[in-house]
Amino acid sequence: MARIITLITDFGISDGYVASMKGVILSINPSAVIVDISHAVEPQYIRQAAFILHTSWRYFPESTIHVAVVDPEVGSSRKIVALKTPRAYFIAPDNGILSYILYELAGGYKTHSYPASNATSKRPIPDGCEAITLTKEEYWRHPVSATFHGRDIFAPVAAHLSMDIPLSELGEPVTQLHAFPVPEPFKDAMGRTVGHIIHIDRFGNLITNLRSKDIPREGAAVEIHNQRIDNTAPYYSKSTGLMAIIGGNDYLELSVRNGSAADLLGARVGDTVTVHSRPHS
Amino acid sequence: MARIITLITDFGISDGYVASMKGVILSINPSAVIVDISHAVEPQYIRQAAFILHTSWRYFPESTIHVAVVDPEVGSSRKIVALKTPRAYFIAPDNGILSYILYELAGGYKTHSYPASNATSKRPIPDGCEAITLTKEEYWRHPVSATFHGRDIFAPVAAHLSMDIPLSELGEPVTQLHAFPVPEPFKDAMGRTVGHIIHIDRFGNLITNLRSKDIPREGAAVEIHNQRIDNTAPYYSKSTGLMAIIGGNDYLELSVRNGSAADLLGARVGDTVTVHSRPHS
Amino acid sequence: MARIITLITDFGISDGYVASMKGVILSINPSAVIVDISHAVEPQYIRQAAFILHTSWRYFPESTIHVAVVDPEVGSSRKIVALKTPRAYFIAPDNGILSYILYELAGGYKTHSYPASNATSKRPIPDGCEAITLTKEEYWRHPVSATFHGRDIFAPVAAHLSMDIPLSELGEPVTQLHAFPVPEPFKDAMGRTVGHIIHIDRFGNLITNLRSKDIPREGAAVEIHNQRIDNTAPYYSKSTGLMAIIGGNDYLELSVRNGSAADLLGARVGDTVTVHSRPHS
Repeated sequence: MARIITLITDFGISDGYVASMKGVILSINPSAVIVDISHAVEPQYIRQAAFILHTSWRYFPESTIHVAVVDPEVGSSRKIVALKTPRAYFIAPDNGILSYILYELAGGYKTHSYPASNATSKRPIPDGCEAITLTKEEYWRHPVSATFHGRDIFAPVAAHLSMDIPLSELGEPVTQLHAFPVPEPFKDAMGRTVGHIIHIDRFGNLITNLRSKDIPREGAAVEIHNQRIDNTAPYYSKSTGLMAIIGGNDYLELSVRNGSAADLLGARVGDTVTVHSRPHS
Repeated sequence: MARIITLITDFGISDGYVASMKGVILSINPSAVIVDISHAVEPQYIRQAAFILHTSWRYFPESTIHVAVVDPEVGSSRKIVALKTPRAYFIAPDNGILSYILYELAGGYKTHSYPASNATSKRPIPDGCEAITLTKEEYWRHPVSATFHGRDIFAPVAAHLSMDIPLSELGEPVTQLHAFPVPEPFKDAMGRTVGHIIHIDRFGNLITNLRSKDIPREGAAVEIHNQRIDNTAPYYSKSTGLMAIIGGNDYLELSVRNGSAADLLGARVGDTVTVHSRPHS
Repeated sequence: MARIITLITDFGISDGYVASMKGVILSINPSAVIVDISHAVEPQYIRQAAFILHTSWRYFPESTIHVAVVDPEVGSSRKIVALKTPRAYFIAPDNGILSYILYELAGGYKTHSYPASNATSKRPIPDGCEAITLTKEEYWRHPVSATFHGRDIFAPVAAHLSMDIPLSELGEPVTQLHAFPVPEPFKDAMGRTVGHIIHIDRFGNLITNLRSKDIPREGAAVEIHNQRIDNTAPYYSKSTGLMAIIGGNDYLELSVRNGSAADLLGARVGDTVTVHSRPHS
């Protein structure tokens, strides 16, 4: 069956780890179409993988199988889960990497500050979804190594799922998954909307959790590190210097034309960004 | 339809940008075969992308669709164009990224110095070719973001083209495209052939615009930075130290065995390289 | 024919070199499925490519064609060979890159120290295998460049092989291939098992040539750089600090949770690692 399987890992592309996963998949389903989302997630940076998956999965066809392997607890008793949503499948360690997916579906796993820790809590499976923990070893590659479940469990299970083996065949139902709270903007006492940087991309663009609906249509002023950006541009090229712009996933980004906003500001994931209406002057 | 679509961008491979484009393509044409040319073009370095595309496209089957997204003016009024040549299709911003392609076909967009600026000028579409500006929004992904036309316009148009939607359906004809002049070698007053470094590859090889026809068959001497290279080798391995060699696309390269000529010489794109016959001694 | 062709090179992914190979393959066999093993082999580091290929090839389906192009002698009289083993095909320069493959099949090309040089010697083709040197130029791309045999010879020969052109059509039989000796652990006078670091991965994990069979089941102590690691963990996450663990290919690895063992120890490929039974105390 020609089904799409995407991969997001922190394995890098210099070793043969990703290729080993692909070989296992193609050994089971020679017609699988495998697409890399990213293998350059910083080692064990679950939140980064969660964000990248969140901004990528929706562009794939229905029933695509997304495999996420950022798995610091590999080999421990942490669970590997498969989640079926109305539009896609996800296979991942139960460590928070699906937090944004669960948040999109259920809308409630939120916080107003950028979480200082990676702590997760158990959340119910959203309505219309189904989840299992992978337990059926007959769908795994044997012997199962202690360190490379991507190759020995995630890949073969994804391949079998792409062959239309039903989810219920692959493991036991679960009713909860671990998620970290997703930071959402809020209004402060002065009426400003307060958000956070949630991702920095390869251009040094600072992607915040502020959405277009959070930005006043006329005369928004954005502040970061006590620096005010009046330049809320409709697209990258209009202006020089630091600018604020609604990016490709409806998040407000801080950008510098032909440069890196991250470097210019020394900004980091978790930093606060505020937006308010600019007074008429 | 199993048609090949290649991608060259400056998006990097750590974020999900390239994957989002692939997801959009596969959602429209599940049989498309997508091949990465490069996503490591330096951010917004149009000339580098132009050169890499120039040295790669010809090895693909006829009717391959090449999508180039190095697009600093994304979201502005710059045009996105599709060019049909006798052997391939190209979809790109109209910003000079197709300069080498146009130069190959028409032969006339040349200069004798390495251009100091990125200035382009309008050039006619070469004979036997056809170009349009993308205007038919029904073939785009909606809503169209301000910053990610790669995903919202380039990718879906490429996918539709791969489904045999004719070019004329996708936009309005144009008669001119922007190109920067391509530097060509010339003879100086002393009879030396003067060229320039036009690309530096991952090995630190310095690729010049000098072709095999510019190199005297017997006893060529190559000079760069007032340093003379008598060692014009037929292949990399024959010698140690700096050597000059005809590379895989018929361009003269300066190389160091097991090292980087770029680092050794502190050389940069645009630097002058001369070649002349070595006197008999 | 939908046959898998894998690629491992030192070409990097920023230039169009890998894409050119893929274009050539798809021009000959449009149904070939091409999988990247790695293009981030350090330039001309044959041993690194040999190890990565060794730990990846076995996960691919039977009859997969593995193409390895780390080829410092490109253009010289070095041979390009194709090796058919009971489970796979390999196309590579005859420079040692297939050493681990030959070692797996024949078991005898070993040494007890980490080789200081890249010297290879001729070894017989293992039983059940067949090898040729590529000589039939009608299966190459012409004109053949001096520097890019990956595109002009390796890729088209792989594509033809994937179309079921028999090996014997593609060249002349050879009875020997060059291999470097593969370092194997040995017992020293004090009864300790002495091995070496043979690969460092992207996480900074130190992969040794010690296998699970070399590790005492109860109470192993591992030493590197006069530092003793009592912490022989079953998986990465159990402990903090430096630990020793059996990795995904049955090799003992030295790892640091959430860190790089290579950086912590300043360790390099070739460094000695010893293991012995921990005295009861």
